[in-house]
Amino acid sequence: MKTTENQTAANSSVISPDELHDVIQSALTAHGASPENAHIQAANLVEGELRGHASHGIRRLRVLIERMRNGLIDPNAAPELTWIAPAVLRIDGKRGFGPVVAQRAIDEAVARAEETGIALAAISNSSHIGMLAPYVEAIAQRGLVALLLTTSEALVHAWGGRKATVGTNPIGLGVPSQGEPLVLDMSTASVSMGKVIDYAATGRPLPEGWAVDSFGRPTSDGRAAVDGGAISPFGGPKGYALGIALEAMVGVLTATAFGTEVVGTLDTELPATKGDLLICVSLERLGLLGMLPLLEQYFDEVRQTGVAAPVDIPGDRARRARDAHLANGIRIDREVWLRALAYAEGTLAHD
Amino acid sequence: MKTTENQTAANSSVISPDELHDVIQSALTAHGASPENAHIQAANLVEGELRGHASHGIRRLRVLIERMRNGLIDPNAAPELTWIAPAVLRIDGKRGFGPVVAQRAIDEAVARAEETGIALAAISNSSHIGMLAPYVEAIAQRGLVALLLTTSEALVHAWGGRKATVGTNPIGLGVPSQGEPLVLDMSTASVSMGKVIDYAATGRPLPEGWAVDSFGRPTSDGRAAVDGGAISPFGGPKGYALGIALEAMVGVLTATAFGTEVVGTLDTELPATKGDLLICVSLERLGLLGMLPLLEQYFDEVRQTGVAAPVDIPGDRARRARDAHLANGIRIDREVWLRALAYAEGTLAHD
Repeated sequence: MKTTENQTAANSSVISPDELHDVIQSALTAHGASPENAHIQAANLVEGELRGHASHGIRRLRVLIERMRNGLIDPNAAPELTWIAPAVLRIDGKRGFGPVVAQRAIDEAVARAEETGIALAAISNSSHIGMLAPYVEAIAQRGLVALLLTTSEALVHAWGGRKATVGTNPIGLGVPSQGEPLVLDMSTASVSMGKVIDYAATGRPLPEGWAVDSFGRPTSDGRAAVDGGAISPFGGPKGYALGIALEAMVGVLTATAFGTEVVGTLDTELPATKGDLLICVSLERLGLLGMLPLLEQYFDEVRQTGVAAPVDIPGDRARRARDAHLANGIRIDREVWLRALAYAEGTLAHD
Repeated sequence: MKTTENQTAANSSVISPDELHDVIQSALTAHGASPENAHIQAANLVEGELRGHASHGIRRLRVLIERMRNGLIDPNAAPELTWIAPAVLRIDGKRGFGPVVAQRAIDEAVARAEETGIALAAISNSSHIGMLAPYVEAIAQRGLVALLLTTSEALVHAWGGRKATVGTNPIGLGVPSQGEPLVLDMSTASVSMGKVIDYAATGRPLPEGWAVDSFGRPTSDGRAAVDGGAISPFGGPKGYALGIALEAMVGVLTATAFGTEVVGTLDTELPATKGDLLICVSLERLGLLGMLPLLEQYFDEVRQTGVAAPVDIPGDRARRARDAHLANGIRIDREVWLRALAYAEGTLAHD
């Protein structure tokens, strides 16, 4: 979800990424997180804002803090890492911050892939990991192909079905190139629930293909979608097939929940039952670094086929947004910002 | 592509799967293939027909035979297998039949995954592997999660671009369950080129979202799509992003070609430059077989949300088609069938 349209100058402020980071970090340390872990979690939310996805930005702070207060996140947890096979790592996050647990998993899996060629890390019992792009981009910059998947609350209906039974199950894929890596980070839903809720609140009709009502009928009524309906998969039956296939793969390999039993990233009352799955492959170990100039050449050829402007390779658009936000600051909703400041000062009572 | 609509009883015949297999196998042995390799390749084409995808069926025989005659396929090639890292196998197919090379790769990668947990096989220099579903289904039935990817001729335009620069790059994913496995096999294009050619031939207007013309403009004119235009990705920009990400990943990891340099599966003049990539993960090795009843339960819950009929889990529909074709035979275009018989009798001259 991009910055919502009602975030005008009147009820929002432009904040520098550094200040944003520091306030989030302070909010987290004020609630018991170590400075180091608070930094990793704060940087993750800032990355969401920098790349233009406010839904994965500072707005998540409230749920994080509430989950910490409710004992559902242990900000200083020591994840339990077990190599259950030579190239497969199991990580029990012990209710830790998603980005902190993910970073441990990545460092271990990358090091192992440099030996075995490919390695897999299966994470459970860890909080929301945020956008996938920053992780796979960083791994690709280290010279590895990275596939990162995560399950999420059931918000999407099966094709031909009613009710939400499939997560928005995003797919993250980073592929190194000679220049900037290809960075794919896309949900398998047609739209975020946050956006549907925004439309429902203002009464604007939903575009075709976004959602169904509780009878499984396509609907333009945001309230009907939110109230017992479901978001549609992107791309029709293929998007559904991809989404449920990823749900099955991640759930089985991380030994976590499926469908409506996936909870604990949007709410503030339930332990997180989703799983995160990372597969990485070392190009250096496999002697494949020589492919990178060829890939870059391909990307340039594709870019040049643009009709009105150069075509984007996945990752290009987020990189432009990031550069602009780094230069000009990030527009943050006033209420969200004031709440973050209050959290940082320790003056905000329990919700 | 399903059976085309002009395949009526008048110009087609119903053939039993066994007879279909035997005629294809005879056609291949008549052109120098060993009985064993001819069997594997024939079974692959029959599987395409059984699952309702005639585009991956006996129609491919002509290109296979012509490629054998032109020395572009060596039906008895000995693939060169090299473990370039403990969990990564490189296979040079030596111009062998795609299914024969793939089967070698699968057997080796599955055996290695039973030790290392996960294994990757990167295949180059091998002919078209056919549908992905039969491979990933068979691997899943052996208790492994299987991700199988292959690049293909550039037929799809980038989002916002003109000209075909991305393959139809299908994604195959098999996930074991307690009952039948989940089997995903989908192209990242909105439609097959074969179908667009059919529409162009009859002058029927293309549905919205299928293709663009040579200026990158959406078109309903099949001829404009075929003549310098391109097929559209499925699901808009997300489908494009997924397709090019898979192209980059497969091309880099198999050290094969990208974009318009991918040739040799549709034509009869050029060596095959595409790559095939297999990743498999052993559930037994990782102690995860206990997840399978939970996954089956999830699938059943999803099936029951169907509005008009039970929802399909990926693989269900092809399984029904397969059962029906096994029971009732397969309708084959008369001209295609007569050509196969002539190939089998060795009476068909070079095209």
